[in-house]
Amino acid sequence: MKISARNVIKGTVVSVDKGATTAHVKIEISPGQVITSSITNEAVDSLKLVVGGQAYAVVKASDVMIAVD
Amino acid sequence: MKISARNVIKGTVVSVDKGATTAHVKIEISPGQVITSSITNEAVDSLKLVVGGQAYAVVKASDVMIAVD
Amino acid sequence: MKISARNVIKGTVVSVDKGATTAHVKIEISPGQVITSSITNEAVDSLKLVVGGQAYAVVKASDVMIAVD
Amino acid sequence: MKISARNVIKGTVVSVDKGATTAHVKIEISPGQVITSSITNEAVDSLKLVVGGQAYAVVKASDVMIAVD
Amino acid sequence: MKISARNVIKGTVVSVDKGATTAHVKIEISPGQVITSSITNEAVDSLKLVVGGQAYAVVKASDVMIAVD
Amino acid sequence: MKISARNVIKGTVVSVDKGATTAHVKIEISPGQVITSSITNEAVDSLKLVVGGQAYAVVKASDVMIAVD
Repeated sequence: MKISARNVIKGTVVSVDKGATTAHVKIEISPGQVITSSITNEAVDSLKLVVGGQAYAVVKASDVMIAVD
Repeated sequence: MKISARNVIKGTVVSVDKGATTAHVKIEISPGQVITSSITNEAVDSLKLVVGGQAYAVVKASDVMIAVD
Repeated sequence: MKISARNVIKGTVVSVDKGATTAHVKIEISPGQVITSSITNEAVDSLKLVVGGQAYAVVKASDVMIAVD
Repeated sequence: MKISARNVIKGTVVSVDKGATTAHVKIEISPGQVITSSITNEAVDSLKLVVGGQAYAVVKASDVMIAVD
Repeated sequence: MKISARNVIKGTVVSVDKGATTAHVKIEISPGQVITSSITNEAVDSLKLVVGGQAYAVVKASDVMIAVD
Repeated sequence: MKISARNVIKGTVVSVDKGATTAHVKIEISPGQVITSSITNEAVDSLKLVVGGQAYAVVKASDVMIAVD
């Protein structure tokens, strides 16, 4: 499957923290650079996400803001 | 200003493409790794974004999806 | 690629309207039921979206609201 | 109330799963086609959502991605 | 129609700027406090938005970030 | 830090409700006008959000819908 989302960044799952319904998953995309994702517990199970596995962080361009110092 | 968004990734602006109302800005966050953002033209002007400038890509955790092969 | 987004709905592309930077794509998911998407022109080109083609509308669960009469 | 969101899809509530603060609500929009929504518990109470009730899934066009095989 | 979005803020339309496909609409919610929205041109037409009209800014709670100085 | 998000609205924190992973924070932006935000517990801790503190609600323009009666 190929998706319209412009940002698909490869990394390694470094943590999976399931809550009551919502999970937080962290992906290390380069040494020391971690992306945090909030997804459903159901998706964690469906994708069989585990620490150490390869995964992609996927973000739609319209959900990316820009900041400057 | 400190923001709740969990993902604030430093990089360099590599392109600014203004449309009629919406602009696309690309930030290189590591060699060859580019993040694409869709923001208002008004924000491009307000932040004085130009190619070569330092900037951050900012993404709320709930806007990050995970994918696996 | 398998994605965490809980909503992946198959349909047929019924219109592709490219603007200056942003395109609107409509997918018919059942007779008379159309989903409208706003994505980058770049994504339209990358996915080679054309009227009559098969495609999926993909929506993260946290982007779905509920309404009642 | 009429809303700018381009996608308002009628269906029947098939599950309501409240977590600590966030609930997952599933709406069947056609036989076998279910949309999953993640909203606040507060909204579930405010809208009095219950299994079997009629409801709409509402999605802003800029939150819809497109994918192809 | 009653919606799950937790933020529905009444105001007056102070500008409507249509682009090629995407429009920017500004709503004044209190003297000097303006909210900017980016929606489809199609929605502007559908809702017949004009400067001086009454309207609501609607935001899902999961799309609101918090910042501190 | 200056951000591209067009909506940065000053207020006072009136409630902080942490769930298992996700927190709901309410900011009063004018007398009786409250904005509800859903963010990670981690962000609540990082920003040291407490009732009575000053804070900003931050919303990207593409996440604001418009409604009319």
